Amino acid sequence: MAAPCFQTIMPPIWIDENDQFVAKIMGQFADDGVARRMVAAVKERIHSGAYRPGDRLPSTRAFAAEWGASRTTVTAAYGQLISEGYLVTRQGARATVAEGLLAPPTRGDPKRDHPRTLSAFGRRLLELPPPAPTLDHPVADFRYGDLAASDFPVLAWQRAMKAAVLRREPRLRYADPLGSTALRTALRGYLWRARGIACTPDDIIVVNGSQQGLDLCARLLLDPGDPFVMENPGYILARHAFLAAGGTAIPAVVDTEGVTTDGLPPARLAYVTPSHQYPLGSVLSASRRRALVSWAERVGAVIIEDDYDGEYRHDVAPIPPLQTLEPDLVIYVGTVSKTLSPTLRLGYLVVPPALRVAFAEAKRLTDRHTPLLEQEALAAFLEDGTYERHVRAVRRKNAERRGALLAALSAAFGPVVRVEGAETGLHLVAWFDGMPAGEEPALAAAARKAGVGLHPVGPLYDPTRIRPASAGFVMGYAGLGTDAVARGVSALVKVIGRGGSGHFRP
Amino acid sequence: MAAPCFQTIMPPIWIDENDQFVAKIMGQFADDGVARRMVAAVKERIHSGAYRPGDRLPSTRAFAAEWGASRTTVTAAYGQLISEGYLVTRQGARATVAEGLLAPPTRGDPKRDHPRTLSAFGRRLLELPPPAPTLDHPVADFRYGDLAASDFPVLAWQRAMKAAVLRREPRLRYADPLGSTALRTALRGYLWRARGIACTPDDIIVVNGSQQGLDLCARLLLDPGDPFVMENPGYILARHAFLAAGGTAIPAVVDTEGVTTDGLPPARLAYVTPSHQYPLGSVLSASRRRALVSWAERVGAVIIEDDYDGEYRHDVAPIPPLQTLEPDLVIYVGTVSKTLSPTLRLGYLVVPPALRVAFAEAKRLTDRHTPLLEQEALAAFLEDGTYERHVRAVRRKNAERRGALLAALSAAFGPVVRVEGAETGLHLVAWFDGMPAGEEPALAAAARKAGVGLHPVGPLYDPTRIRPASAGFVMGYAGLGTDAVARGVSALVKVIGRGGSGHFRP
Repeated sequence: MAAPCFQTIMPPIWIDENDQFVAKIMGQFADDGVARRMVAAVKERIHSGAYRPGDRLPSTRAFAAEWGASRTTVTAAYGQLISEGYLVTRQGARATVAEGLLAPPTRGDPKRDHPRTLSAFGRRLLELPPPAPTLDHPVADFRYGDLAASDFPVLAWQRAMKAAVLRREPRLRYADPLGSTALRTALRGYLWRARGIACTPDDIIVVNGSQQGLDLCARLLLDPGDPFVMENPGYILARHAFLAAGGTAIPAVVDTEGVTTDGLPPARLAYVTPSHQYPLGSVLSASRRRALVSWAERVGAVIIEDDYDGEYRHDVAPIPPLQTLEPDLVIYVGTVSKTLSPTLRLGYLVVPPALRVAFAEAKRLTDRHTPLLEQEALAAFLEDGTYERHVRAVRRKNAERRGALLAALSAAFGPVVRVEGAETGLHLVAWFDGMPAGEEPALAAAARKAGVGLHPVGPLYDPTRIRPASAGFVMGYAGLGTDAVARGVSALVKVIGRGGSGHFRP
Repeated sequence: MAAPCFQTIMPPIWIDENDQFVAKIMGQFADDGVARRMVAAVKERIHSGAYRPGDRLPSTRAFAAEWGASRTTVTAAYGQLISEGYLVTRQGARATVAEGLLAPPTRGDPKRDHPRTLSAFGRRLLELPPPAPTLDHPVADFRYGDLAASDFPVLAWQRAMKAAVLRREPRLRYADPLGSTALRTALRGYLWRARGIACTPDDIIVVNGSQQGLDLCARLLLDPGDPFVMENPGYILARHAFLAAGGTAIPAVVDTEGVTTDGLPPARLAYVTPSHQYPLGSVLSASRRRALVSWAERVGAVIIEDDYDGEYRHDVAPIPPLQTLEPDLVIYVGTVSKTLSPTLRLGYLVVPPALRVAFAEAKRLTDRHTPLLEQEALAAFLEDGTYERHVRAVRRKNAERRGALLAALSAAFGPVVRVEGAETGLHLVAWFDGMPAGEEPALAAAARKAGVGLHPVGPLYDPTRIRPASAGFVMGYAGLGTDAVARGVSALVKVIGRGGSGHFRP
């Protein structure tokens, strides 16, 4: 993010070879190049003090003669200077230099000046840890959230985009902040078929990926100082969104039945991943589900249910969402980032009726609505069954990748590695019980040097609580071919050592 | 937004004809339909109290016989119930109903319960006036911001989208929150050629239309109670974004030289439209530009320069943006909503170096990044000159529409109408000096009945200040054919009356 500064280069009005191009693009002048140079020259004389406020300019005839140009050109240039306020003119009189044109202000030190202008939100934002850098040409990056581009249904998506462009209305206008009616109707059907969610299209709001959904929840439900319940460990960008809004995290321990609900204090909201806890992979048990809903009802909290990879259950059928238990208390968050592409930025919320207007208005003020063409393309995808066929296809592929990763880890590390949460989703957690948690950052750095993206669980734990003693890593596999999985694990053996306490010592 | 409630309909696992479909989509069971019905039946018995916590379930053999199904199917169903936490099992023993399964909680009244959960931001949002409703099949809607769909370069955009899909990386991963490097590089060149802005690609952040840019500014620069300077009249969704963030508006009067700068009190930011004041159309004079920059420097404010239609100067060349005067104090806001389509949701900010990290982090937490395919398509559009050719073409078309509107207004109303700000942009303001401002809402309602979208200037004025005594309307023309312009104005004659004090009386 270094910022070489181009300020000293002259603006393009000084550059001859550019003039014709600029004139073609922007100008309505008879001879735009000359007029632009005249405008610039007059401004320069004003800025340098050669022309002073109140000074009369040469007549258009004299100026034209001086420049060897037509009077039309001078008139156009003077008109421009008048419209910019450099010159003033009275009926019949010659143009004069306007009053109040000061010398350019001297600059302060922006680095020193600007921080004072940041809001509390902005300051909180800058206190959050930055994301891990991306590897450019990795042997294998096990970053969770990446998908293989070869899984993307290029032709079908192009077809759907083309149909969406042709289906357009006679006018292009800002659309419904809730999202395209076609998409919300199609999503209603999909949520009913695939997840057993019974809602109307008006309960759905289309957002730019689940992150925008979480951010809208943070803004609408949290004031500075408000407590929010957060799974520990949990999804870091959810925690960050709530912390940036000024919330105070109440970490809730996660075990094999999902997030624990005993003794939860009052809070404004609870963020949970009941179908597949991120990152540990447990499924929230039925009794915990009921306890969580009862707690929310008692304390007046809203539950945010992030169903980020509900489509991927390898061994058992998908679990019905919490939302089906208590639609008035639960905001359901869905996304196509794990089935189509994270770069499309398409997600959706199912919002309780009482919160709908607030979400619609927040979305409208935030960015009007989600881009329309891609919404319509997704609607077509859902309507004709392409989406569900695609989900079945990528589920098979990801089951293969998962198998390859499990086999490679087992072959490479044997009993030294303990795998958690591989039953569902697109990632697992690999624990190295022989290796202390404190070595996670050094291991990740060493893996990085070896071209492997290895992502510690550490940042997913609340920094104020005790975390497990062993080093653990979240390993996503949806972006990797089975060969890359094998190469990546081989490279890790060199970094970690077969014994878990092998030759790596930071 | 009425919400018929589907809660009483059974979820799809009960619907026989759906079963095969659901099974095909989601299941890995041998006979998914039967297993699903088993799962539902057991849950139903637990919820109704027929099975109680600790009860042992029938053996898989007995259950299979009861249902006439295979034991494999029963095992799958039990497995599902165990993974959802309804049943527990110990090695070798029969499954029993889990402890802690309460009856479904009774519902509170969501309408009464929920408002307490809204943040201060949410409550401020709901206090703002709602937007004007949209006309479905208008004779003509003079709503500013609409574009004619026939102006959209369908084929060229499809080509660019197709190229963008094919240009994809081997992995689909969350992209740079600042936006695609290709687009920011292309925008740097465009801003230099077209607007004289000298910046680096790293100074640019791609946003989902200018509204997201304004919202990011509001969040990063304003704390509740902070003053912000706002043109009066001015762009309503900018004012709303700053008010929703908790800011206090300082209205600054607009005259023929743009926003007035005398005696401005300290503020955290100033929102201005220097190239073409919205809605009155004046150009900020050079002396006011310098005064505004000096003020911002003195009080430590940031200037937000919304160059919302800088591409449309019909009579004079475009004015260099404020940003070129003091890049360290000015956030420049640009958009393609007025040149390509408001539904694409593509805009950009040029941000002072000292604020760049804060904007990037805010964008990342807000929605990760703007959708990538459309960024890449716009990059291709800019790189090969298509965008600038397109701008020239639509500028000509909009000049025609503007001519048609001016001619129709003049023919219909003669000296009764006073037109302001028609020199540039895609709208004008029509003042009816014989008609009091208080009649604006009734006139708009009457026009609406006649199928014409007519949009009063009233809401653009700060409600705490005195506004002009005459009724005035913002009339956008970019979404209308010249014939629709003529029809719309004819219809308005019937509503307003030729004399301005004609037959309309509310």
